[in-house]
Amino acid sequence: MLALRVGEGGVAVDEVPAPLPAGEALIRVSLSGVCNTDLELVRGYAGFRGTLGHEFVGVVEDDGGGPFARGERVVGEINAGCGTCARCAAGDPRHCPTRTVLGIVGRDGAHAELVRLPARNLFRVPAAVSDRRAVFVEPLAAACGVLERCPLERGMRVAVVGDGKLGLLCALVLQHAGFAPVLFGRHAAKLGIAGGCGVATRVVRGPEAPRAFDVAVECSGAPGGLELALSLLVPQGRLVLKSTFHGLASFDTARVVVDELQLIGSRCGRFPPALALLEQAGDALPVEQLVSAVLPLAQGVQALERAAAPGVLKVLLSR
Amino acid sequence: MLALRVGEGGVAVDEVPAPLPAGEALIRVSLSGVCNTDLELVRGYAGFRGTLGHEFVGVVEDDGGGPFARGERVVGEINAGCGTCARCAAGDPRHCPTRTVLGIVGRDGAHAELVRLPARNLFRVPAAVSDRRAVFVEPLAAACGVLERCPLERGMRVAVVGDGKLGLLCALVLQHAGFAPVLFGRHAAKLGIAGGCGVATRVVRGPEAPRAFDVAVECSGAPGGLELALSLLVPQGRLVLKSTFHGLASFDTARVVVDELQLIGSRCGRFPPALALLEQAGDALPVEQLVSAVLPLAQGVQALERAAAPGVLKVLLSR
Repeated sequence: MLALRVGEGGVAVDEVPAPLPAGEALIRVSLSGVCNTDLELVRGYAGFRGTLGHEFVGVVEDDGGGPFARGERVVGEINAGCGTCARCAAGDPRHCPTRTVLGIVGRDGAHAELVRLPARNLFRVPAAVSDRRAVFVEPLAAACGVLERCPLERGMRVAVVGDGKLGLLCALVLQHAGFAPVLFGRHAAKLGIAGGCGVATRVVRGPEAPRAFDVAVECSGAPGGLELALSLLVPQGRLVLKSTFHGLASFDTARVVVDELQLIGSRCGRFPPALALLEQAGDALPVEQLVSAVLPLAQGVQALERAAAPGVLKVLLSR
Repeated sequence: MLALRVGEGGVAVDEVPAPLPAGEALIRVSLSGVCNTDLELVRGYAGFRGTLGHEFVGVVEDDGGGPFARGERVVGEINAGCGTCARCAAGDPRHCPTRTVLGIVGRDGAHAELVRLPARNLFRVPAAVSDRRAVFVEPLAAACGVLERCPLERGMRVAVVGDGKLGLLCALVLQHAGFAPVLFGRHAAKLGIAGGCGVATRVVRGPEAPRAFDVAVECSGAPGGLELALSLLVPQGRLVLKSTFHGLASFDTARVVVDELQLIGSRCGRFPPALALLEQAGDALPVEQLVSAVLPLAQGVQALERAAAPGVLKVLLSR
């Protein structure tokens, strides 16, 4: 089968043997999405070697003893825990110390014709949710995870910093949940997608200093974004860190201590709320507007290049 | 009167006019404590000009219309709010946007013979609490503030990083509250003070990587301490930042995001719980063991130098 793989010699679409179920489920991938993390992995992040891709929708080929029928449409949570540690026993393999992570840590990913995952990681896709929307469930779950890590109350003033894919999804989720976020970004076209859903947007031109937000969600992945997000917060405000940066980020600890700010790391979210949101929100959550291009899997390397280009949002790989 | 002041020409003990009450209370200072923040202010932090000092105990000279009798022993909260904003109305002037802060922001401090504060900032010192213990109420309140900003549950594993004054006070407060902290530091003599109160201590030699703590309290004020504190945390652990650093501090955002850590800034605490603790704990909270030297106010400059020397803990100024 074809697979987009990163190895010693760089990244390429290779012909490789199809995976065996080996006690897990086997899914035939219909669509997979390119994430910024894929680009980071190609640059050497986490030292990953293998098949890239952790956003996908597909159909069950072999359910590996799970409760699925062959041909059912599914998506899959990317953290595969050991199943026995305290974290897994508590129903949260996202922090299992020996977890593998689809296409990121110790497990081949979904930019391939077939992908393997434990059956317990799979979730059925409701009939009303198209493949093109279902492929967004992983980043959408990450956006929903903001509310899991940083519970909000009505009337709180919320900013989202960064108008890339994750920033847009966070803004859309918060808007849909009734929190009226303000999205800060540099690209009018990208801001326009959120604006079309009623999200208030602001073009970032220079340093801001309104200090008028109770919560800021940092999605830019750039040190300047972290600085901006901190500058927006009132005393005792909370900053949710969704993005990792290249290398180390600096921050003014005096500001954090004197104003008693909180920085809250947030990574993956849970799939069921994100799937329910995709089903119930319909056109009010037009995630498919984030699709900039769809390329065949064979053009995986070009898809990565395309995803890294300025102004581009989600690039999908079709089979 | 004499006052230890920082100005354009540096720091000096000057003869200055005594302050007028001007609607506030006037306190004759008995003892004041040198804080690391005093040393930072001399180096230019916050651009402060005026009389240094924000840790003191004294007797009421004029209560400025408050409920105090002349001669009553008092300590004073350092944040003087406007009294009318939402923060002040909620009973917390610590984040009033137009606050002055004793000896730090826009208000002459307590390294003087007389100091002025709003009567509402003052608290009576219980008879059982000596001056030498009462002068610790401000940093002790800051240590108690850890529990205000980061509520703990029984059985949580707590580390304190840094064996300076604040680290020792945090360790003692947490130990007294029943949380059995482990104190990490570089100085056997300082660690010994906490050890004498039953606190488990560990001498830091190199990078640690146990990742065995639910909460780490950063009190070292050094970038290496921040790094160590982060390295100690389990996934979804919490780091309480008590110290500010010189300039910017760097941290690995990938670690914070992937392990979903929280960084929680914590500055001043409330005085009443700290005063109650000093009264009730008695010898179980031997804060007076942190006193390295007592110098007369006239030797204020030497006191600052002494406080900056290696191995020195609290330096007090007597009148």
